[in-house]
Amino acid sequence: MNAGVKVFAPASVANVAVGYDILGFALEKPGDEVIVRFKEEPGLVITSITGGQLPYELEKNTAGFAAKQFLNKIGKNNVGIEMEIRKKMPFGSGLGSSAASAVAGVFAVNELLKRPMTKRELLEFAVAGEQIADGAWHADNVAPSLLGGIVLIRDNKTLDVHRLPTPRGLYATVVYPEIEILTSASRAVLSDQVPLSKCIEQSGNLAGFIIGLMHSDFDLISRSLNDVIIEPQRATLIPNFYEVKNAAIEAGALGCSISGAGPSIFALSNNSLKAQAAGEAMQAIFAKAKIESKIFVSKINQEGAIKF
Amino acid sequence: MNAGVKVFAPASVANVAVGYDILGFALEKPGDEVIVRFKEEPGLVITSITGGQLPYELEKNTAGFAAKQFLNKIGKNNVGIEMEIRKKMPFGSGLGSSAASAVAGVFAVNELLKRPMTKRELLEFAVAGEQIADGAWHADNVAPSLLGGIVLIRDNKTLDVHRLPTPRGLYATVVYPEIEILTSASRAVLSDQVPLSKCIEQSGNLAGFIIGLMHSDFDLISRSLNDVIIEPQRATLIPNFYEVKNAAIEAGALGCSISGAGPSIFALSNNSLKAQAAGEAMQAIFAKAKIESKIFVSKINQEGAIKF
Repeated sequence: MNAGVKVFAPASVANVAVGYDILGFALEKPGDEVIVRFKEEPGLVITSITGGQLPYELEKNTAGFAAKQFLNKIGKNNVGIEMEIRKKMPFGSGLGSSAASAVAGVFAVNELLKRPMTKRELLEFAVAGEQIADGAWHADNVAPSLLGGIVLIRDNKTLDVHRLPTPRGLYATVVYPEIEILTSASRAVLSDQVPLSKCIEQSGNLAGFIIGLMHSDFDLISRSLNDVIIEPQRATLIPNFYEVKNAAIEAGALGCSISGAGPSIFALSNNSLKAQAAGEAMQAIFAKAKIESKIFVSKINQEGAIKF
Repeated sequence: MNAGVKVFAPASVANVAVGYDILGFALEKPGDEVIVRFKEEPGLVITSITGGQLPYELEKNTAGFAAKQFLNKIGKNNVGIEMEIRKKMPFGSGLGSSAASAVAGVFAVNELLKRPMTKRELLEFAVAGEQIADGAWHADNVAPSLLGGIVLIRDNKTLDVHRLPTPRGLYATVVYPEIEILTSASRAVLSDQVPLSKCIEQSGNLAGFIIGLMHSDFDLISRSLNDVIIEPQRATLIPNFYEVKNAAIEAGALGCSISGAGPSIFALSNNSLKAQAAGEAMQAIFAKAKIESKIFVSKINQEGAIKF
């Protein structure tokens, strides 16, 4: 047969404090791997899933569904392809696990078929894949996982996505406490109304964050990384959240907030030493509360999904 | 005695569709003029006001109050200064008339005294001056009138202001219909709560607008210039608003919305011909409704307040 294609799609941090549903950035690790190979019998099948309990049915699997939608679109659903999924990141962590699988699935098949589409064109299929897990049509994890970088999704409906500049030296820290929060619970705590004053304050911070990225103005990034809408409503879902956040800031981070729907917490720093120190300080707070946690420190991933 | 100093501070468009209370840009015209001269008797007095009925008492006059606060701060309130104010723009037009006067007042005195402060440092005094007219501490008209350009006020409290890039070719059109809307009425129609979904949509548009400015991406600017929060609530205060807006867009404008608290309506275009055509199309709608209006077409003013 053939050697097949092996790809990696990274974890991502959605919301990024000031961009609920419209901002996300990619991490260098963790992430998911997908391997695809041609097979003789027609049709796509998932032959192996390691690292987590996931359905093998294409219609219920984010990677499988994303790839299947793509194959339908290009009229290649008769091509025989087998897919192996290697989950290398936790579910329900707030790190875009299902988004990474969806991205890896469709990206791998596109590579196997010698790129009938550009990366950017794969976005809608990956979003459709993630929608199976999440129920919602949004790209704030999928777009950074696929494209890399810090990404604005101006409009989720039309997938109007734009890369933001990444200042040299910007590092991300993510601490994943091993507790479970369902995305549905995390959405349920949110009020569907926002005070106008908070909406103005958050808008100023979002705009300030973007200008800060543009000018590599770390002080401005730091002043701007302040979520006055979502974080206060979700903080109670994560034990010791404010202690963890303060620990990150005291260790030198520019800002710290909840990654996606949580429970992971992210921080941004202007160098790797502070990013590492912030992670250790955050982990120490969880440890005191007898909560196991994992740290991931990396630059902002500029590549997104890659082929090995 | 002495020849004195004559300055000009321009009108400005606040809110800019997607940045309620946090965005503004400066026009080249109209604007207010202030002339200041030394006099022998100590203290600041307003000796002449033309172009509008305004109080001569410093405590009640935006230009006088801004200048007085500045003189107090630098310990020069014994210096004898006379001030002439030439209002050259309408009150209550939504074009930052009181902001322009406040800026001109403090900027003129700073020039007369050979610049004890930088332009940027004058901001707080101009904001204090405008506050007399408006009641609120905010810089979305004052900052562009003083500094020029398209300005983000990340935080009004601390006056954390930042210039945004202006794409080459960007033109502003303002049409001022000669009807009266009180700022208080315009604020009163606003709900103090915003649906979270609208807050997300507007945030995406604000971010898209900034990226569009950054990359001179006029299509993105156009897609982003869409106010889903404030405009729908205020549109009813301006007769034929949506017809006027549609006329501007059909004439080729990138976007169109209410300037500040109204009734002026602004449009942005990617060249001067479209800006002029948009203005005429907008004016024609008002004319059909028997409403007199004035058109102002200009580049984004990059200088702000200037000395003649």
